[in-house]
Parts: sequence; structure tokens; C-alpha cells
Amino acid sequence: MESENTLRRLKTIEGHLRGIIRMVEADEYCIDIIRQIQAVDAALNKVSTQILDNHLNTCVITAIKGNNVKEREKVIKEITEVFEMSAKV
Amino acid sequence: MESENTLRRLKTIEGHLRGIIRMVEADEYCIDIIRQIQAVDAALNKVSTQILDNHLNTCVITAIKGNNVKEREKVIKEITEVFEMSAKV
Amino acid sequence: MESENTLRRLKTIEGHLRGIIRMVEADEYCIDIIRQIQAVDAALNKVSTQILDNHLNTCVITAIKGNNVKEREKVIKEITEVFEMSAKV
Amino acid sequence: MESENTLRRLKTIEGHLRGIIRMVEADEYCIDIIRQIQAVDAALNKVSTQILDNHLNTCVITAIKGNNVKEREKVIKEITEVFEMSAKV
Repeated sequence: MESENTLRRLKTIEGHLRGIIRMVEADEYCIDIIRQIQAVDAALNKVSTQILDNHLNTCVITAIKGNNVKEREKVIKEITEVFEMSAKV
Repeated sequence: MESENTLRRLKTIEGHLRGIIRMVEADEYCIDIIRQIQAVDAALNKVSTQILDNHLNTCVITAIKGNNVKEREKVIKEITEVFEMSAKV
Repeated sequence: MESENTLRRLKTIEGHLRGIIRMVEADEYCIDIIRQIQAVDAALNKVSTQILDNHLNTCVITAIKGNNVKEREKVIKEITEVFEMSAKV
Repeated sequence: MESENTLRRLKTIEGHLRGIIRMVEADEYCIDIIRQIQAVDAALNKVSTQILDNHLNTCVITAIKGNNVKEREKVIKEITEVFEMSAKV
């Protein structure tokens, strides 16, 4: 199942984030902490991409093949919005 | 026409970029130059989003409504790829 | 203390991430999940910026005022590297 | 000279951008255009990083070694600001 893989990745990221919290508590070197935060960022981007891919292959195909114009416009607008946001975060 | 708007934005960005080149030639303050480059980046992201929106409303709808499974898979894969890349640049 | 604030923010992000995990477990709408991941991304960027600001005001000032050229070059190179990476993640 | 290299890179990017404008005029495939815009984004990030590196090795060292506290605070604040922005564009 697709979401099993997504869940596993998110739980790994949660563990990574807890490691970063321990680094801050142990007063580790700032740059090392920033690099770990950037690694978490990159991992989150991979999860988002995976979720979007799944979304395109299910909901979006269904909405576009369907006859509900409003629903079709909605799913397309959402993709555009998360794409625009992804360049900003 | 959609591409008229895209063209106009891109030409504005080209003018902005030429302004940045003149700033470097005039040896202006580094941070001011970096801020202008970041403004160009943000403007390019808006153009990309506009192009993607247009693409979703034309080619992607056609491909998904069509019967060519390979074509459908191709357009979906492309969206996933540009989404993943947008988080990296 | 600066790191108290950083810690508090990171723990808030950890809670946010656990909320996302529950959303995936509850099979919530893909786009809503992606938006929450993007919110976590934005929050992580703020923490990184705060840590960098603290680093510049402590280690970097000490290294640049000091007489160890190698150490000075190291801290400058590190800032350049995390800056370059921040545009990619 | 450092800025020669920066100028050369920016002029190459300007040429790249003009190529993208021609692609839009020729009504080329949307995804190909988005990919070229993303390549320009990545190239701009490299130029920004190069300019920041130069800035750190000149103005920032001078300001931090100097006795003007306000100037020192200003250069540090600027680095933090462009770092925060770089994650957003």
C-alpha cells in the first residue's frame, strides 16, 4: 500500500527531528544542526512528491475523467497552488 | 492569449536581469545584488506556476481524458518531476 | 537563553509532524497533507535562520576577530555552504 | 577578478533566459519550458552563493574586525535576511 511507505518515511523523519532536538539540548555545533534541518527538509520534499504522485494517479485522474467541471477545476487549482508554494518553502 | 502574458513577464524578468548585470558592473553592494537575484527567482517561480497551470488545463486534461495510457502516465510523471525539482531550486 | 527558544520551536514542529502522521493514518486528503508538510518546511526554515543568526553573533564573530586564519576560513566556508544548500531544500 | 566571473555567469544566464523567451514564442512544450526556467533558477542560486562568499571574505571580515558595532550588527543582520529569503525563492 502506498500510504505504508509514506508513513514509514514520515516516522523516519520524526526520528531524525528528535535527533536534532537532542543536538540542540547537547549544545552541538550550530552549522551541524542547520545541516541536519536541511536534510529533514529534503526528506519532507521527497514525501510530498510521493504523495502528489499518488494523488495525481488517483483523485486527479478520477476528477478529470468525471463530468463534474467544478471538481475538475478544484483539483487543477490545488496542484498549481502546492507547486507555487513548493518553490517558496 | 495565455502565452502573451507569459512572454511579457519573461521580458520584464530579462530587463530585471540586465539591471542586475549593470549593478555588478557598477560594483554595487553585494547584498543589494543578492536581493535583486532573489526577486528574479521569485518572479521566475510565478511564471513557472502560470505555465504549469496552463499545461494542466490543456495538455493534461486532454491526455487524461484520452485513451493513450502511456501518454497519460507520461504527463503525470512530468508533473511529479517538476514539482520535486521546484523544491530544490 | 537562545537555545530554549529554538528547542521550543523544534518541539512544536515535532508535534506538527506527528499530526501529519495521524493525517496519513486517517487517510486524509492528499493536498491537505502536502500543505501541512509545506508548513513544517517553512517552520524549519525559521528555526535554521534563528540558529544561523545566533551562530553569526557568537562563533563567527569570535573566529573573525581571532588570529587563526584557518578557523576564519572554515566558518566563512560553512556559511556559504548552508546558504547554497538552503536554496536547494 | 571575482566580479568578472560573476558577470560572465550572469550574461550566460541572460542568454539562457532569451532562449526560454524564444521557446515560449515558438509555443514549445510547457514542461520543457518549466525545466529550463528551473535550470535558470539553479544557475542564479550559484551566482548568489558566489557573491555571498565574496561578500563574507571582504565587507563582513572588515566590519567584524572594525570597531563600529552598528556596522557589524548591520552586516550580520543582512546575512540572516538573505539566508531566510533564499529558502523561500
